[in-house]
Amino acid sequence: MYRTKALGMLRQKLSEMGVSAVIIPTNDPHFGEYTQNYYKIREWLSGFDGSAGTLVVTEKSAALWTDSRYFIQAQEQLKGSDIRLMKLKMPQTPAIWEWILNQYPDGGKVAIDRALFSYSEYEKLQQELKPCTVELVDDLFADIWENRPTLVFNPIISLDVKYAGESAKSKFNRVAEALNIKEQMFVYIVSACDQVAWLCNIRGTDIDYNPVPQSYAVVTNTAVHLFVDLDSVGDELNKHLISQGIELHPYSSFTQTLQQIPASTLRICSKGSVTVRDYNALDIPGATFIEDPTLGGTINYFKAIKNNWEKEGFRKAFLEDGKAWCKLLKYIDDSLASSQPINEWTIGEKLIEFRKESPDYKGESFEPIVAFGKAAALPHYSATEESAQIIGNNNFLLMDTGAHYPYGTTDTTRTIPIGTLTEQQKRHYTLVLKGMIALSMAKFPQGTRGSQLDILARGPLFSDGVMYFHGTGHGIGHYLCVHEGPQSIRMEENPVALAQGMVISNEPAVYIPDQYGIRTENVILVRECEYNSFNTFLNFETLTLVPVDLSCVLPNLLSQSEKDWINSYNMHVCNTIAPYLDMETAQWLSNKYKASI
Amino acid sequence: MYRTKALGMLRQKLSEMGVSAVIIPTNDPHFGEYTQNYYKIREWLSGFDGSAGTLVVTEKSAALWTDSRYFIQAQEQLKGSDIRLMKLKMPQTPAIWEWILNQYPDGGKVAIDRALFSYSEYEKLQQELKPCTVELVDDLFADIWENRPTLVFNPIISLDVKYAGESAKSKFNRVAEALNIKEQMFVYIVSACDQVAWLCNIRGTDIDYNPVPQSYAVVTNTAVHLFVDLDSVGDELNKHLISQGIELHPYSSFTQTLQQIPASTLRICSKGSVTVRDYNALDIPGATFIEDPTLGGTINYFKAIKNNWEKEGFRKAFLEDGKAWCKLLKYIDDSLASSQPINEWTIGEKLIEFRKESPDYKGESFEPIVAFGKAAALPHYSATEESAQIIGNNNFLLMDTGAHYPYGTTDTTRTIPIGTLTEQQKRHYTLVLKGMIALSMAKFPQGTRGSQLDILARGPLFSDGVMYFHGTGHGIGHYLCVHEGPQSIRMEENPVALAQGMVISNEPAVYIPDQYGIRTENVILVRECEYNSFNTFLNFETLTLVPVDLSCVLPNLLSQSEKDWINSYNMHVCNTIAPYLDMETAQWLSNKYKASI
Repeated sequence: MYRTKALGMLRQKLSEMGVSAVIIPTNDPHFGEYTQNYYKIREWLSGFDGSAGTLVVTEKSAALWTDSRYFIQAQEQLKGSDIRLMKLKMPQTPAIWEWILNQYPDGGKVAIDRALFSYSEYEKLQQELKPCTVELVDDLFADIWENRPTLVFNPIISLDVKYAGESAKSKFNRVAEALNIKEQMFVYIVSACDQVAWLCNIRGTDIDYNPVPQSYAVVTNTAVHLFVDLDSVGDELNKHLISQGIELHPYSSFTQTLQQIPASTLRICSKGSVTVRDYNALDIPGATFIEDPTLGGTINYFKAIKNNWEKEGFRKAFLEDGKAWCKLLKYIDDSLASSQPINEWTIGEKLIEFRKESPDYKGESFEPIVAFGKAAALPHYSATEESAQIIGNNNFLLMDTGAHYPYGTTDTTRTIPIGTLTEQQKRHYTLVLKGMIALSMAKFPQGTRGSQLDILARGPLFSDGVMYFHGTGHGIGHYLCVHEGPQSIRMEENPVALAQGMVISNEPAVYIPDQYGIRTENVILVRECEYNSFNTFLNFETLTLVPVDLSCVLPNLLSQSEKDWINSYNMHVCNTIAPYLDMETAQWLSNKYKASI
Repeated sequence: MYRTKALGMLRQKLSEMGVSAVIIPTNDPHFGEYTQNYYKIREWLSGFDGSAGTLVVTEKSAALWTDSRYFIQAQEQLKGSDIRLMKLKMPQTPAIWEWILNQYPDGGKVAIDRALFSYSEYEKLQQELKPCTVELVDDLFADIWENRPTLVFNPIISLDVKYAGESAKSKFNRVAEALNIKEQMFVYIVSACDQVAWLCNIRGTDIDYNPVPQSYAVVTNTAVHLFVDLDSVGDELNKHLISQGIELHPYSSFTQTLQQIPASTLRICSKGSVTVRDYNALDIPGATFIEDPTLGGTINYFKAIKNNWEKEGFRKAFLEDGKAWCKLLKYIDDSLASSQPINEWTIGEKLIEFRKESPDYKGESFEPIVAFGKAAALPHYSATEESAQIIGNNNFLLMDTGAHYPYGTTDTTRTIPIGTLTEQQKRHYTLVLKGMIALSMAKFPQGTRGSQLDILARGPLFSDGVMYFHGTGHGIGHYLCVHEGPQSIRMEENPVALAQGMVISNEPAVYIPDQYGIRTENVILVRECEYNSFNTFLNFETLTLVPVDLSCVLPNLLSQSEKDWINSYNMHVCNTIAPYLDMETAQWLSNKYKASI
């Protein structure tokens, strides 16, 4: 079995280096949510292909830490290996450092790849692992991993200013102004591919679901230096980038370029978002570092505040997506009515088919979740073509999917009641909806943080003694990553206030293990709605245009204003989408969703 | 004028010391909310007697920083002096350090009294004031302040274990266990008088409104060392304290005792709650300091979690207070009905008179606020006998007062509608009530922080574009300070979660400048209400027993469950209090407050 052989070769290598243990994370040097296959070392070595996990290999043992979403899957996939599953956040689970120290109480060398850990992670490990020392190493798998996928560099796409709403030059000017460094040369290090893409108005297809090219950028007083595969930049884009004051450099020269920056140049660089490799390249004698001056990160924050063109683009993206969703909802309804078996996988494929009717469709924004019955109780369930369940009866069908368009990114969840439901199912469905509506209707002064609003979505469920363990809302990129910061709506404190122009999801849920799952998700846009002597007040515009099934709602759990809100929402969706549908589908939509509760 | 003379003497003294500026705060070495008159240096020197303010005197100028509550009062009281008013949180107002640096850009000595600043304030000033240096001085006013009040040490009261619910010895054991220092000697420094009082089960009358003796404590591995005026401890209490493992020391020997602690003894001491004087006394070569290991402070946190005896005591305290309030409400009603003029001052006095009918009454827990009409728009308005307004018509009368009983402390605000009100007044009154009810009805999982719940109280007002700028809820001591931590319900993040046994206020409000103010305040107790597979859930028991006037409520702004809540609350109050009232008052109460909306 390749895993045993690979682990053996790795241990051989560690032994030659005098290293006792190695920590293998899930990320690449850009710390995004997805990586290219080239970086899926943990997945290849352990066999566990969930999206999150850390593998630690010592001389005699190996263990994999992952979170509750993946306990069952990891257990399954680790079978036949000697890798022990470590369940994160369980009381008996040791921390990685505890587990290593337990084996090497008197010290030892613990290796980490300098390109795969942030500098702050490195500092933390150094503290935690004492008396062990942290050994920085380069990629250990070049000669161990046979048939390793290569790093892909696809052609880079220019994002027209008619979609971006602002030229790259103007973005550079705003960033430089915000950094506010006067009378000194500076470099501002940008490692996250989506930040580079936003800054330079470029997009790519190198990474699944995240439409960004593999890239870095360095902002200086006078220019943006963009590090990409030069062969991936066409002549026209090349000219355009130069016209925007962007200087191109080979992707592979990034770290080397950092090394050559004079010590007198101020380094603006967050330890948490730059690799140890790159931080050390910058850290020459006499060099001065400062943290990013903007809460949440200057580029990250600017990227989160959508301009009027981006807002308009989001509205168009949700219109396009709404059309596909409405067709899908009818397809499901028709299939169930005619007792034609459909399964989770085919529903996902069907939605893609409908989405492709739009010439602007650029692909899915994340792996679609289509889950029936108890599968829906796993918040990140993903059916494969082989494992997909047939959609049955007397339970919920949960669908959470999104798409990219050049003018915006979508993310929608709808839960469809099928057959006869229990009172508890109806009650939970209604309370999820009640929370979604309450957050949608919120009005609040500027400066309000997501953690203050979170209870609006959770409160109705709390009142029933029910809760969900994920966040209520995440930021969404503009034809960029479907999960972006710096804002959030969560129970946990996040100091970044919600501000006009931010796009964020609103997705309360209930999961009853082994029974069912319910989630209803709209995407909302923060806007100013009132200015008076007290303050400037904000509220939300709902962007999503997919009707909500009210057939199993218990109306007495909703207040009149909540009923008014959802009735008017469904009416608005029907009226907006119907003109784009064929007569039959439009009629079906109107019959099914225009009825008030 | 004495102020001019005193400032002159102070400047003379500074000049002799080679000091350019002095910062005079409002607190004493215990950092409580109130101080004895002996420490009211800022008040004496500036003439401004608000509860918050910092005076800075330089060679040529003087300025006083205070917050928006006191802008008008300070303006008035500083008249005739050369002291400039600095309005805190106004954009044009310089920080204290900016103002000093503006006068001494090349450096200079800035004096602070080592007994009146915490060590963390001192560290901060040292950074901010560079290139000026911070000069630690002892009391500067001994020979400047003629007829200075002396420090008062009244007899110390023993709090019977039937009220405290736990012996001092048991409290010591729990604190020592939580500190969890094994195999090493330690000292845990307690500077806050209310923490000392809780730990030792003692109370006092040295300070207005806060029923605590002027005191310190040091907890060691084996004992509590209590620093008080020894003459204030009667024989019986003395014996009792000794029996509880408490060793007595003179109040004045505190700092000197700290100096004698061997360097090998671990110092547990929060820089933010100990004076520079005492921190430096501890900071001898080789000494090790650690921060308090409990979020919010070990004693402070334990003090906030009321035990069953304390909870029962609070219920009794609110019952006693409710009787007095009901009599007062009738008195006001009768006076207004008979057109007999009453004023803000006499109402406060009348309530005290009714409270005194309880043999257990131990005094007010803060300066009563009784404010009619536009005066109520000032959240901390306080009428004097001379300045009190007659209660007029067509506006609100706001009353915020509380009392101490040996079994608990109260804090209640009621706003009484008088005459004919505008639609906006009625609407605001209803929305304040709606917020108060929403928070009262909240149910939430353990671990929830006050900042997450705050929007429940504010949300209805936000929806109308209205907000209040103070917190929604503060902790309340058990026959201790009416404002205590570590929990709070505020917009600002506070990492301390609400936990069963915590007592906290619930006081949304509206203030329309120059027109009116509305505040409705109940006190609520956190309790466990459900345990299931998701979590342990908490909710609130309302302790306050004072009916809420519903005569001006707009019922269509309340949901049915909100109406049910307030109707049942008023019914409960009437049924609970009536048996203690004379027939006429009971009848009046029932007529006025039993009507449902």
